[in-house]
Amino acid sequence: MGPLKPLSLSFADGALVALDQRKLPLEMSYLTLRTVADVREAICSMSIRGAPLIGIAAAYASVLASREYASNLASIAQQIDWLESSRPTAVNLRWALQRMRRILHAASNNLQSPDELSARLLHEANAIMTEDRACNLAIAAHGAALLPRNANVIHHCNTGSLATSDYGTALGVIRWAHEQGQGVHVYLDETRPRLQGAALSAFEMQHYGVPHTLIVDGASGLLMRQRKIDACIVGCDRVAANGDTANKIGTYNLALVAKAHAVPFYVACPVSSIDASLASGETIEIEHRSGAEVTTLSGQQLCPPGTPAWNPAFDITPEHLITAFITEQGVIRPPFADQLRTLAQQSRQVLA
Amino acid sequence: MGPLKPLSLSFADGALVALDQRKLPLEMSYLTLRTVADVREAICSMSIRGAPLIGIAAAYASVLASREYASNLASIAQQIDWLESSRPTAVNLRWALQRMRRILHAASNNLQSPDELSARLLHEANAIMTEDRACNLAIAAHGAALLPRNANVIHHCNTGSLATSDYGTALGVIRWAHEQGQGVHVYLDETRPRLQGAALSAFEMQHYGVPHTLIVDGASGLLMRQRKIDACIVGCDRVAANGDTANKIGTYNLALVAKAHAVPFYVACPVSSIDASLASGETIEIEHRSGAEVTTLSGQQLCPPGTPAWNPAFDITPEHLITAFITEQGVIRPPFADQLRTLAQQSRQVLA
Repeated sequence: MGPLKPLSLSFADGALVALDQRKLPLEMSYLTLRTVADVREAICSMSIRGAPLIGIAAAYASVLASREYASNLASIAQQIDWLESSRPTAVNLRWALQRMRRILHAASNNLQSPDELSARLLHEANAIMTEDRACNLAIAAHGAALLPRNANVIHHCNTGSLATSDYGTALGVIRWAHEQGQGVHVYLDETRPRLQGAALSAFEMQHYGVPHTLIVDGASGLLMRQRKIDACIVGCDRVAANGDTANKIGTYNLALVAKAHAVPFYVACPVSSIDASLASGETIEIEHRSGAEVTTLSGQQLCPPGTPAWNPAFDITPEHLITAFITEQGVIRPPFADQLRTLAQQSRQVLA
Repeated sequence: MGPLKPLSLSFADGALVALDQRKLPLEMSYLTLRTVADVREAICSMSIRGAPLIGIAAAYASVLASREYASNLASIAQQIDWLESSRPTAVNLRWALQRMRRILHAASNNLQSPDELSARLLHEANAIMTEDRACNLAIAAHGAALLPRNANVIHHCNTGSLATSDYGTALGVIRWAHEQGQGVHVYLDETRPRLQGAALSAFEMQHYGVPHTLIVDGASGLLMRQRKIDACIVGCDRVAANGDTANKIGTYNLALVAKAHAVPFYVACPVSSIDASLASGETIEIEHRSGAEVTTLSGQQLCPPGTPAWNPAFDITPEHLITAFITEQGVIRPPFADQLRTLAQQSRQVLA
């Protein structure tokens, strides 16, 4: 199985080549990452971002580790642990690295040559990427079927090709609906503080020719009150066993606004994002990032120097605000808990 | 009665001297405005902004008109009409200019000298400014009494000294609570797209030493879910007879989020902001501003060139989401309609 060559990331000649998403929308430049440290830095600085893409990038970084540390399996395992600590909230990172650890563990029992180990790790990373694309296409088809013709949809953050191997999750639903000719127009929340909606989602929608309009995050209420919106679709970074969902800061506000207007609120959710080990969202760790993301923009000061800022990167949307989860296995409606647990178990069995 | 010399605006030597609020928070520079056209441009470009301050500035611009057009009362009246068209949503502009028209009308019946007319108009503009400060202090005292000790409050946009003659409305409540020693900490919504919370409210809170923390507009839900917030306080641009309230875009979202968490949602409302001629908020005209406010920041492109944006400057918060109005006459709790009508009538009688 050969690697895909998506927009966001590819692996060739012993290096991970990643689109530097911090340079978008004005510049398309690629980073060439040759070491685990390179990849980890790219993830921490958000040059590589989006929960599924982080998992894919970390999988390829494990291949780089196997080349750096040859037959030193303990060092390779340490590098994988170090990669896992790069971002705390999304579950895909942990899930992808768990797959790489399994390959490493099998190697330790079979005394493979360093080259053979690298080849097996690369095969697994390629598989994760290929499966991600297939997963996204399945989510896209299930999700598009939920939308009326000529739907107007609100989307938050970026969940598209740039966040995944291709298509993406929530934005993949919208792109698919457009490509199927069913008519769709998306209002893109700009998504402060990092403006992924403006910089990344608008870039993708323009790239794929999907009709779109940018709004500030605070304008969704007025849009819904004017009855202009048929649905909200968002992605997720981690879904607890009961359906509580961690996603980009501002998602919870959007869900509350949708609920107040009886607008369907859909979460596009690869099964790999379900964390059945957490009973509810209360225990999902929320990453807090530097206040400078709020107080400055590209080095420009937005407020007086010294202004303190509170900058959680994610929030938790409780399950009762979610109309349905769109997974690659189909659409799940409430009550969610049993269905999510079943899906997560199947996923673990496939992995086992 | 002499003029006050507030931070935001003063009238001296035949000119209106206004703080250029577009330069904040990095630069405190003042514009010297000598003609009606100067003042109108400063209002349209939002160098002068904040509903009460716009009314005060327009009142002083009427004085400038009387000096430009001497005894040509019809031309002065035309200039006043032209000023009224500078921004559509806030009622204070119309209300202040109605007071100036009454002075002009009285002059036309009494054949005053141009100098006497100017002096009377100036006296009226000074009165509007002085009354605004007294009004704000009354709102501040009534509002601070609603807050528990050591309250944590969310505030949206800018409603402080920079938006008024002094203290302001919602932010005046917070400043007053701080000055009275009752303990208060305010989370400032940055308020996209124009970032009045970051650029202006953070500047004021720092200036007056009030504890504050900046947040993105989408973070209010997580804050309330973590039970960190005792109240939300916002200003208003226009309040309909039933209590529906036009205010800065994002206010409605905040009100919905507060309602979902049973957090009190207070609107600081000078009686002059009540527009009893409108039965409900459905008929309040919402100003739509250039999409460039969303797609660019200080000339920097935030999204791909050509991205369309939808940029309403205000939204409408329906009265059922509002816990109470804080007016200079006291606190009004639901049902609002009769009390708002009575206040508006008293205000008109004072004017008549």
